[in-house]
Amino acid sequence: MHEGKDQLIVHQHDPRYSLLRSLQSASGRLRSGKYIIEGIRHVARAIEQRAPIELLFVAPSVLSNPFGKKLARRIRQSQVPSIRLSPQLYRQLSLAAEPQGIGAVLRQQWFALSELKVARNSLWLAIESVDQPGNLGTILRTAEAAGVSGVLLLDAISDPWEPACVRASMGSLFSQKLTRCEIMEFTSWARRSGSTLVASSPRGLVDYSSFRSRWPAALLIGGERYGLSDQLLDAADFNLRIPMRGGCDSINAAVASGVLLFSLSSQRS
Amino acid sequence: MHEGKDQLIVHQHDPRYSLLRSLQSASGRLRSGKYIIEGIRHVARAIEQRAPIELLFVAPSVLSNPFGKKLARRIRQSQVPSIRLSPQLYRQLSLAAEPQGIGAVLRQQWFALSELKVARNSLWLAIESVDQPGNLGTILRTAEAAGVSGVLLLDAISDPWEPACVRASMGSLFSQKLTRCEIMEFTSWARRSGSTLVASSPRGLVDYSSFRSRWPAALLIGGERYGLSDQLLDAADFNLRIPMRGGCDSINAAVASGVLLFSLSSQRS
Repeated sequence: MHEGKDQLIVHQHDPRYSLLRSLQSASGRLRSGKYIIEGIRHVARAIEQRAPIELLFVAPSVLSNPFGKKLARRIRQSQVPSIRLSPQLYRQLSLAAEPQGIGAVLRQQWFALSELKVARNSLWLAIESVDQPGNLGTILRTAEAAGVSGVLLLDAISDPWEPACVRASMGSLFSQKLTRCEIMEFTSWARRSGSTLVASSPRGLVDYSSFRSRWPAALLIGGERYGLSDQLLDAADFNLRIPMRGGCDSINAAVASGVLLFSLSSQRS
Repeated sequence: MHEGKDQLIVHQHDPRYSLLRSLQSASGRLRSGKYIIEGIRHVARAIEQRAPIELLFVAPSVLSNPFGKKLARRIRQSQVPSIRLSPQLYRQLSLAAEPQGIGAVLRQQWFALSELKVARNSLWLAIESVDQPGNLGTILRTAEAAGVSGVLLLDAISDPWEPACVRASMGSLFSQKLTRCEIMEFTSWARRSGSTLVASSPRGLVDYSSFRSRWPAALLIGGERYGLSDQLLDAADFNLRIPMRGGCDSINAAVASGVLLFSLSSQRS
């Protein structure tokens, strides 16, 4: 393993590099159960949150930041395997405008519904579908900041480990409890745990700013294009509306999540 | 003008196409005072809001949607010049994953500070700087939905007519009063109009959820990286904080704008 650290990978057909590239596709991530993070800030937060780092990759000629170099040393010292990439290969992996030359492969962490402990005043977020990965990442970041206990994904396809989502989540993936389940499983979990289901919809009956929730509660967010399905709207105990002015009929799904999550969250203190 | 409508532009060095391409750069937009919108939804809203359309461009072989075709006919009937582009040239102009084949050139609309009428309970948004054009566009969309009377840009560089900003604003640019001014001009405008200046900062003293504003009011938003300048923080009457939980020390600037604007807006009704 320590020899591997010193080998510089320069060919894109090198199997270790192919493994990294495979994690840029949904099928590669699904097959391996892993994902990529990239940049100093993300790697630092992964260490801080004790996220399961499986491989470190650096581009030595790109990584000039002293703090970044320190992070790389620290990860290597904890016996995590590491590889070194040529700047060209590194840039092909990076979404950053100015790549920092450090990244890592992490193990995806999923929780089963049965593992979620629903405390008396806890707030949860259930997402039916979100169109853009960047938006999903911003929602995950917002959810952490609002003190959400866990995020439940109610569709089969949204992929929190997609690079643009990981990037926008700003490290919130490392600490967030993520669960994927069917709508039916979710609603029966909510019933069993005594959670109030709070939906959000342009046709909601209650102005969110006058709403006071019962606890525990779960906020339901739908995709920007079609909103929540009838199945979830019917299952909800309350259906909130963010009143719109001007010619607007909708706001960005991440902004709507923020408005509602912080409003709910502020009622708990 | 009517002959022009039927000419299909296929060469990228055609001067009419070069004019369109020039509007993709900041310098080209600054020089001409124009900008580009693209896609059926944006064109429809521009017509609805009577935005100053100066040129229609379509790619006839891409524009298959009947509503889109109807919009194109309607614009031509109002004597607006139009050009037709080959699909290849059209795609070079479009940010859309699935281009719809219709777009327009509009005249930028800026308002002078002296033109802004400050009604007794009006809410304004002042933006010091926002790093990403997509984020700025989402903020403009959010501001319209929250019933903001106008947006003041306090830096010299942020460009609301940048294509990614225009796209994310979802047509809010057409109805929004946009002003660019210096910080000093802004603060004396606020003083003259009796507006309360409400700043937002991670080190703010007041939890936003317990804050009740005096009116009229202007919310101040800084860039995600460095926040508001000391000059604006000092000028503010109140300095609000959105309480963060988890390991988060910040949220996305557009999400923060949404949380604060809707909270302020809901106090006015």
